[in-house]
Amino acid sequence: MTKEEVLQSLAMQTDSKLILVVIDGIGGLPVRGKTELEAAKTPNLDRLAYKSNCGLIDPISYGITPGSGPSHLALFGYDPFRYEIGRGVMEALGIGLKLTQNDLTARGNFATIDEKGTIIDRRAGRISTEKNQEICRFLQSKIREVNGIKVAIYPGREHRFVIVFQGEGLKDDLTDADPQKDGQKAKGTENLTEEAQRTAEVVNEYLGRAMEALKPFHPANAVLLRGFSKIPNIPTMFERFKLKPAAIATYPMYRGLARLVGMEVLETGETLQDEVETLKNSFNGYDFFYIHFKKPDSAGEDGNFKLKVKALEEIDRMIPSILRLNPDVLVVTGDHSTPAILKSHSWHPNPILLYSKYIRPDRIRRFTERQCQKGQLGRFPALEIIPLMLANGLKLKKFGA
Amino acid sequence: MTKEEVLQSLAMQTDSKLILVVIDGIGGLPVRGKTELEAAKTPNLDRLAYKSNCGLIDPISYGITPGSGPSHLALFGYDPFRYEIGRGVMEALGIGLKLTQNDLTARGNFATIDEKGTIIDRRAGRISTEKNQEICRFLQSKIREVNGIKVAIYPGREHRFVIVFQGEGLKDDLTDADPQKDGQKAKGTENLTEEAQRTAEVVNEYLGRAMEALKPFHPANAVLLRGFSKIPNIPTMFERFKLKPAAIATYPMYRGLARLVGMEVLETGETLQDEVETLKNSFNGYDFFYIHFKKPDSAGEDGNFKLKVKALEEIDRMIPSILRLNPDVLVVTGDHSTPAILKSHSWHPNPILLYSKYIRPDRIRRFTERQCQKGQLGRFPALEIIPLMLANGLKLKKFGA
Repeated sequence: MTKEEVLQSLAMQTDSKLILVVIDGIGGLPVRGKTELEAAKTPNLDRLAYKSNCGLIDPISYGITPGSGPSHLALFGYDPFRYEIGRGVMEALGIGLKLTQNDLTARGNFATIDEKGTIIDRRAGRISTEKNQEICRFLQSKIREVNGIKVAIYPGREHRFVIVFQGEGLKDDLTDADPQKDGQKAKGTENLTEEAQRTAEVVNEYLGRAMEALKPFHPANAVLLRGFSKIPNIPTMFERFKLKPAAIATYPMYRGLARLVGMEVLETGETLQDEVETLKNSFNGYDFFYIHFKKPDSAGEDGNFKLKVKALEEIDRMIPSILRLNPDVLVVTGDHSTPAILKSHSWHPNPILLYSKYIRPDRIRRFTERQCQKGQLGRFPALEIIPLMLANGLKLKKFGA
Repeated sequence: MTKEEVLQSLAMQTDSKLILVVIDGIGGLPVRGKTELEAAKTPNLDRLAYKSNCGLIDPISYGITPGSGPSHLALFGYDPFRYEIGRGVMEALGIGLKLTQNDLTARGNFATIDEKGTIIDRRAGRISTEKNQEICRFLQSKIREVNGIKVAIYPGREHRFVIVFQGEGLKDDLTDADPQKDGQKAKGTENLTEEAQRTAEVVNEYLGRAMEALKPFHPANAVLLRGFSKIPNIPTMFERFKLKPAAIATYPMYRGLARLVGMEVLETGETLQDEVETLKNSFNGYDFFYIHFKKPDSAGEDGNFKLKVKALEEIDRMIPSILRLNPDVLVVTGDHSTPAILKSHSWHPNPILLYSKYIRPDRIRRFTERQCQKGQLGRFPALEIIPLMLANGLKLKKFGA
């Protein structure tokens, strides 16, 4: 048996409660000698780390900087190399769409082409978001269906949109309908497998009709599509781990990712307090909780070291309320690092603490990257977090006799 | 090549001597702040740890609690996910049977059925071990063979027994002949593959005849069989690692596991001193020694913290005699943790020390879980122990040019 199969065969349902706190972009890099976490005042996390097991997790593997899709799959216990989430799907989840196996998604750009069909500007002069919304409304009213397949178009920011083709038998083995460069001809998609031929015909028919309809909208007179994808065929966390999981997150993308693995996505408000309140109110209904705190990542992406420090301190103040719920297992970690000096996700490992009755505490005094490295959990891939949480919740049977 | 193939190609026979000391159930969890190892006085292990490399091993993988089968396979250098040892085989090894590729084993229960064949009690009212022995003798005298296949039945404790079908071409792709629940009909086995059809016929013929014969033995008037299995087709440690290995263990199960990987199982006595004496007397005849100390696991399973501490201290006193043999490589570790507070095997990593001429000593002052974690070996799966021992014994050639 594979390790995945073994874990699945060992998982059992029990009453114990597991909480996975994901601090988005938690890890950082030093500025004047201190990382964001090291610069932050986090007395609650520090106290918790002292009585926990600590370590460092690689979101995926040494050196790999993940997007939110793969990093969350790994945190949820799914091999991120095995289950891929396409760019169209991520974009659709990001605007809150609930996708089914019948949905084929793609990311779109409005672009400018000349009379010969050559792309002059892939971003149509970065039209305004309002203009984008107007064009999307118009296109949607013009083309609702192609060859029996429903089409829905959702505006994003500036020239960007998401498109969803809906119907049975659609395939995502398609090349991008986007040369990705100015000066080249706009082109249709090509099917990469026999099975995707009908899908390619639908997409190309749509593109032809859209270009025709867009003529009056110069400079946004063309449509480019890329990242055709469907949601992966992924077993639920109940199927894999016998968990009854709930997700608490404010951003649509994380809510969507949680839904992909069969979590119940709970209604919640905009603030950290709202999220913790939701956790409290729903604590009896589930045995696994994923709670996502977004702010440190946003601050990191903006290159704002101080704001990230502040965001971490704010999250630290939520810890006592979470502990008062008395979970059997509590893990605090992140999906990836977002060092302010990089202004982007990074490959660096993240601190993790695991608190349960069944540990030998590491007696570490601060919840930081460099202190957690001294703990017994060692350095390990995020994919191992769920097995560890299950074990500490006494939710795994013995392997073999 | 796979890593396994690479290792096999690099292994070479040399005169160096390797000793693997396995302290069953070594790892623990704190009671009043100290684990069993932390509470024990182990001056010899501590002195040895000081001049060794230390680390923490996961028996299988993060979070997985192993039975003795998988954990020993990993210690012996065999991927425990690849080589599976069935429950029937483990039970047969546990009572000291020497199995060949012609033996199909299963675990059995005597049970009570009513006149319609419905199971009233899966354990036949937990008949006495003496009664069990009497029934087994009777059954054995009645049924020695089915369709040319020999059958042997061995009593265990209370209602339990082990059965072995012996003959060529027997397969273990069989469902349990045991609904595992009272109130259901006793049933035969079904073959899961075409090839196992003849085997299923043999087993079912046996079951029919046994039920008939058992009528006078109410409440033990039925036989349930589960865990049909044969020994895995596993290369020997000589084939894999060019080792000439010997095993020293008092319990039949560990002796049986060692035999599965081609170790010579040495005759020894019941005490620790006997085992060490055996090691001494046979030291010239082999180049790899597996020596197994059982007591800490038994004490842990009983939830007896103090007894486990005592067992560890007793083992500590054996260390000087082992060191006097002057092995080239000495590893001390465990097959899994058995924390007294859990009264069972657990998933926690175990301390390991590796002593050889070719290390950079960690200068760790105590051989405990939390001290070993600070060593250079880091945290790693038990499967890597044999490669490390081979390397330190200069028994591995260079990989590639």
